[in-house]
Amino acid sequence: MRYKEIREAAYEANMQLPKLGLVLFSFGNVSAADRSKGVFAIKPSGVPYHELSVESMVVVDFDGQIVKGKLRPSSDTKTHAVLYKHWEGIGGIVHTHSEYATAWAQAQRDIPLFGTTHADHNTVDIPCAPPMADHMIEGNYEYETGFQIMQCFQERKLNYKEVEMVLVGNHAPFTWAKTATKAVYNSAVLEYVAKMAWLTEQINPQAPRLKEALIKKHYTRKHGPDSYYGQS
Amino acid sequence: MRYKEIREAAYEANMQLPKLGLVLFSFGNVSAADRSKGVFAIKPSGVPYHELSVESMVVVDFDGQIVKGKLRPSSDTKTHAVLYKHWEGIGGIVHTHSEYATAWAQAQRDIPLFGTTHADHNTVDIPCAPPMADHMIEGNYEYETGFQIMQCFQERKLNYKEVEMVLVGNHAPFTWAKTATKAVYNSAVLEYVAKMAWLTEQINPQAPRLKEALIKKHYTRKHGPDSYYGQS
Amino acid sequence: MRYKEIREAAYEANMQLPKLGLVLFSFGNVSAADRSKGVFAIKPSGVPYHELSVESMVVVDFDGQIVKGKLRPSSDTKTHAVLYKHWEGIGGIVHTHSEYATAWAQAQRDIPLFGTTHADHNTVDIPCAPPMADHMIEGNYEYETGFQIMQCFQERKLNYKEVEMVLVGNHAPFTWAKTATKAVYNSAVLEYVAKMAWLTEQINPQAPRLKEALIKKHYTRKHGPDSYYGQS
Amino acid sequence: MRYKEIREAAYEANMQLPKLGLVLFSFGNVSAADRSKGVFAIKPSGVPYHELSVESMVVVDFDGQIVKGKLRPSSDTKTHAVLYKHWEGIGGIVHTHSEYATAWAQAQRDIPLFGTTHADHNTVDIPCAPPMADHMIEGNYEYETGFQIMQCFQERKLNYKEVEMVLVGNHAPFTWAKTATKAVYNSAVLEYVAKMAWLTEQINPQAPRLKEALIKKHYTRKHGPDSYYGQS
Repeated sequence: MRYKEIREAAYEANMQLPKLGLVLFSFGNVSAADRSKGVFAIKPSGVPYHELSVESMVVVDFDGQIVKGKLRPSSDTKTHAVLYKHWEGIGGIVHTHSEYATAWAQAQRDIPLFGTTHADHNTVDIPCAPPMADHMIEGNYEYETGFQIMQCFQERKLNYKEVEMVLVGNHAPFTWAKTATKAVYNSAVLEYVAKMAWLTEQINPQAPRLKEALIKKHYTRKHGPDSYYGQS
Repeated sequence: MRYKEIREAAYEANMQLPKLGLVLFSFGNVSAADRSKGVFAIKPSGVPYHELSVESMVVVDFDGQIVKGKLRPSSDTKTHAVLYKHWEGIGGIVHTHSEYATAWAQAQRDIPLFGTTHADHNTVDIPCAPPMADHMIEGNYEYETGFQIMQCFQERKLNYKEVEMVLVGNHAPFTWAKTATKAVYNSAVLEYVAKMAWLTEQINPQAPRLKEALIKKHYTRKHGPDSYYGQS
Repeated sequence: MRYKEIREAAYEANMQLPKLGLVLFSFGNVSAADRSKGVFAIKPSGVPYHELSVESMVVVDFDGQIVKGKLRPSSDTKTHAVLYKHWEGIGGIVHTHSEYATAWAQAQRDIPLFGTTHADHNTVDIPCAPPMADHMIEGNYEYETGFQIMQCFQERKLNYKEVEMVLVGNHAPFTWAKTATKAVYNSAVLEYVAKMAWLTEQINPQAPRLKEALIKKHYTRKHGPDSYYGQS
Repeated sequence: MRYKEIREAAYEANMQLPKLGLVLFSFGNVSAADRSKGVFAIKPSGVPYHELSVESMVVVDFDGQIVKGKLRPSSDTKTHAVLYKHWEGIGGIVHTHSEYATAWAQAQRDIPLFGTTHADHNTVDIPCAPPMADHMIEGNYEYETGFQIMQCFQERKLNYKEVEMVLVGNHAPFTWAKTATKAVYNSAVLEYVAKMAWLTEQINPQAPRLKEALIKKHYTRKHGPDSYYGQS
């Protein structure tokens, strides 16, 4: 009963992925953290979504050690653990291979900030971290993936509380947020923005980036002390 | 009870947006006006569609002041108000970030009139208003968006009763009509036309614009005194 | 009761269009002919699919004169009438503005025969008839559309019994067959082939046409005295 | 009753194809083999999926001779028979004309290994076998298709147990596996990878192939003695 809340949160959030069209078969995974206990609940590895249950969620600590659960956790568990351990403000993480975001990752390109839909959510091109060095891949791969993401944010001076999504080059997207539900929302928004950015370049290869005044306006409409979007 | 009719109309029209695949999460909004009372009912800000009810629709006057309703109205309310105030023939307005229309807006291009599907609805390229000047963005942004749309129509000598749709550059589409239902119809048609125009250029980068005789024929089949489409 | 069979056939076939994703709102129409009586039943003009009924189908003769029905028939009725009158082997006709086929029509290009899916249905590039001369458009437009289609087949020496589909340049596709059901099948196959042909050119702009031996093999697998596809 | 198990397996696997969006109408077919009896059950030719039943599955031996069943088997039956006869490790085969995979086949290109989604399933570009020589097409076409696939694997030194999918040039994909269920899974993965590879080249025409260390890592995560994906 001790981990009921995060197991339920992880289960509910995982079940959103197929409904939002973000996953095929057992691809993808969501975790939900309880920082007071230093653990998170995550999807078991390779289990299709229609076979999941609250009880099948595996509870793991921030070093990636299993705390509770009969099944093997997602093979990406160590990436989640590293991000939870170092980014103390996040409570949920999502990994998918959603089609359009993954295509940008495979193309090894940042997603350009072309419009207000993007600026409603953050103020920079969505970063694509470069593929890892061979020794990192051959070593503790999923663990290093977490560090690869963090290093990308550090080099670009990005704040993970403002930019809640990343593409891992040649691989696929990760998103996060204060809650698992919000992290799933971010994955769906990323996919939507990724599709529209591709279409924008198709329609106009010289499409300009969104102007700074609009970036600032749309972001601050939704975020920060002067926001006026939604119900307070 | 005083505003029952427009609240119901706005609710029903808003609920069509997710069914038609035009919105994700709480994106987008529809309003329905009662010109005899000088007010319109509009979607509350940031509320997902499945949580909407007739009562949650916010009633606002044509200066953007709330007349009735417990929730904060859509952040785009002032754009609606400006258009209702100056374009006296319209009774419904829709704003979405639908994928293909938004991609054209991000590409800052008018949608070329390539075929009869487009000409069935209007006789010109669908206009893309340029992004606003910085002082307009930094000032009363949503209010200025309404003026940006009207200025685009004025400069191009377009009649809002004939062309019931516009792209706001770098942002997304707005559509309108005599009723909210018809304005939603226009949003779906715009998305359909936007997708086919993109595909047309993909298939033939030199695709010609529709010839004038066909534009005139298809438009007058459906509009004006000699129309013979539909049930009279 | 006299026209019960074709009204039912037309109704059932029309209702397939939205299920197959080939139409939006009231776009598109199907007719079913009874050659013994010299009439066909067709969708009423501008009525959404969910409002259709068997009784709402309008019965028209091969000169386009209404024989039975309270509603105005499809605005494309004369095109159907012309084709039935001159092509005696057909019993059903479909017109849609389906997205990919319409994009090829707007691009004014034949759909190249790139693969066996196409060759399973016919042995030539799917023809795109040129847009009509202005005097034909300004005159009896829908009537002339029928002649434009027939002239295209005549000039290219195509047999309407073998090639059951055409694109009308800048407009959209028409398909036909011995029955309305089969004509709807042809519309769906055309849309499928149109999408794959577009993708094929995207993936390889120099993609070669299907070789003659494969065209012949696949077509004769399904058609003619030596066919061995399906249940005899 | 003798063939109940493979007929049920074939029926269930066939019914997955429309659910996964891999087929239109009666296109496509799945078979399931019983190696102890030297037979496989396969979809009857030209029957739409909603009309299938367990009993309608046709049982055929590895030379393509009908053993049991009232209907004519799939026109592609001999291709299945050849593959079962020569590749002793497979228990299920799927043939579809799924849109994106077929577009690559029509483009006559291998699908480049661009990302980890692909590498999770195999370590090479997905091979596109060249169209057959005319005398093979004009002869025993479906039988020769099986040999064309095997020859492609032989020339490229590919192992059918590791690479469970192929494109037949100008035609469409085939996939296989130890079971029919897994072969259907492979068809869906192939379609997913095919779509993302197309998008990747759209977004970056110079997109690099996945680096060797990542190919090896992702493949061995899921396959072989050191795999750690899924529940053991």
